[in-house]
Amino acid sequence: MSIDAIHPDWVAVDWGTTHVRVWLMSHDGRVLDHRRSDQGMGRLDQDQFEPVLTDLLAGVPPSQSLPVLICGMAGSRQGWTEAPYVATPCSPPGIGQATRARCKTWDVRILPGVKQASPADVMRGEETQIAGVLLEEPTFSGVLCLPGTHNKWVRIVKGRIVSFQTFMTGELFALLEGQSVLRHSVATRGWDADAFDIGVSQGLDQPHALAGALFSLRAESLLNDLSGTAARARLSGLLIGAELAATRPLWRDHKVAVLGGNDVAQSYEAALAAQGAVLHALDIDTPTLSGLRAAYAHLKETT
Amino acid sequence: MSIDAIHPDWVAVDWGTTHVRVWLMSHDGRVLDHRRSDQGMGRLDQDQFEPVLTDLLAGVPPSQSLPVLICGMAGSRQGWTEAPYVATPCSPPGIGQATRARCKTWDVRILPGVKQASPADVMRGEETQIAGVLLEEPTFSGVLCLPGTHNKWVRIVKGRIVSFQTFMTGELFALLEGQSVLRHSVATRGWDADAFDIGVSQGLDQPHALAGALFSLRAESLLNDLSGTAARARLSGLLIGAELAATRPLWRDHKVAVLGGNDVAQSYEAALAAQGAVLHALDIDTPTLSGLRAAYAHLKETT
Repeated sequence: MSIDAIHPDWVAVDWGTTHVRVWLMSHDGRVLDHRRSDQGMGRLDQDQFEPVLTDLLAGVPPSQSLPVLICGMAGSRQGWTEAPYVATPCSPPGIGQATRARCKTWDVRILPGVKQASPADVMRGEETQIAGVLLEEPTFSGVLCLPGTHNKWVRIVKGRIVSFQTFMTGELFALLEGQSVLRHSVATRGWDADAFDIGVSQGLDQPHALAGALFSLRAESLLNDLSGTAARARLSGLLIGAELAATRPLWRDHKVAVLGGNDVAQSYEAALAAQGAVLHALDIDTPTLSGLRAAYAHLKETT
Repeated sequence: MSIDAIHPDWVAVDWGTTHVRVWLMSHDGRVLDHRRSDQGMGRLDQDQFEPVLTDLLAGVPPSQSLPVLICGMAGSRQGWTEAPYVATPCSPPGIGQATRARCKTWDVRILPGVKQASPADVMRGEETQIAGVLLEEPTFSGVLCLPGTHNKWVRIVKGRIVSFQTFMTGELFALLEGQSVLRHSVATRGWDADAFDIGVSQGLDQPHALAGALFSLRAESLLNDLSGTAARARLSGLLIGAELAATRPLWRDHKVAVLGGNDVAQSYEAALAAQGAVLHALDIDTPTLSGLRAAYAHLKETT
């Protein structure tokens, strides 16, 4: 196998727990190539990050002066090199707060995550998405909802992260769908918008009864032939509804923007809109890449 | 390997999803031998139940007239033979409502589960524990809490099951402890009673914020060195607290008895007592066996 040589000016990397995404970039912000793999932080020992990165950069001539800007879990204690958290309230951290990773081949810099002392909370990767949003709207004030395995609700005031809260809703859905007794009743794909709405309403109105409402999906499938598709949508609705019950002061009193554009983000938008929340549209395809572009721009200014 | 012959008058079996327990019984209710295995319903195809049972009955001369009384998931649609549910309100179903399983070697009868139309709910196995309780206290009125993978709260009026609700609290704990991101922060054993109390209070006061409170265990372990033992007890407390928030009308307004006697049951008792619930003591070691004894007594009366 031969790969044509490619000469990026810098490299943007989003290195999460399960996946890694790499963009080969020109100095003026164009994407020359995009690569990804499932060699996420969760599968790697500390000394495996460099070879994995080098594999992903196949065709790029090795260079200790090629900046590789990384955000996400690669900066955690179990990752490549720990990049200490910046504490709220703060602007999304930039290249000036990055940590250099030990790497013989490339100039690797890992952006820090953000921590909150009370209530204790952490993020790694989302702060770079937020930086991307603020690149487009520098004075944004309101609330960002970032759906994912660990959903974040982030309060932004004039471009600064003042507080945030993480919900394990996405991970709970995956565990319940795939590993619990509900796997016998919940389809692995498909959607039923009415069932989702019913779930959201129930989750919002009776969030305390969640562990009971979950089992009722199993019982209704056994007794009332609840379809797998409806059960799947209602499960999602119940969990999102309970999250909306907990975050009500955020979406009721502030401008809200949901980041993503995928199915899950659309579900959050639908649920919020049904509750009368005022949704602010964000026209950003890849906020993480935007945030890494901002970090690179700052690197160029300061070196 | 040779096994001495043993001649029970009947056999009691609790066949759950993950385990099966077998008691070889004399006609006057003494336990001649007790056996168990992990050949639960979840691991077996329909035609495997008979050979597994025969293995467990090693030493018992094959007899088509030996009554084998089974409760639990062996009677589900995925089990040996489906034993249709009895509908609430009802007395715990007895031998008269049992279903005969196809079996060449033994006289196998499977007790039905109980279903509730609205809200939809089901139980299999717990109804036999309840029968065991009512054998001791035939006129019991109040609420039974049966901790387990799928915890049941059962309203009993004068010996009849009038309503019940299932919570997936036990399964949620197992999934979160073993499979979620919290596995990095939660010890696999050990206990911290103060941390449990804090969790219960938080779960009771803010049940809607559960998915957020869960992630805070991870954040506090990263930022504040929350110990694995404390995280484990707080996780349990959060989940049980949320369940107590949902069941408050049951334990506040009625006499409550917690069945079990194991660690989990003691946790429920501690949490309920701290909330001022009046706990009714039940002095029954093996309620399932008591319930199966009652079924056998009735079989003898009617044949």
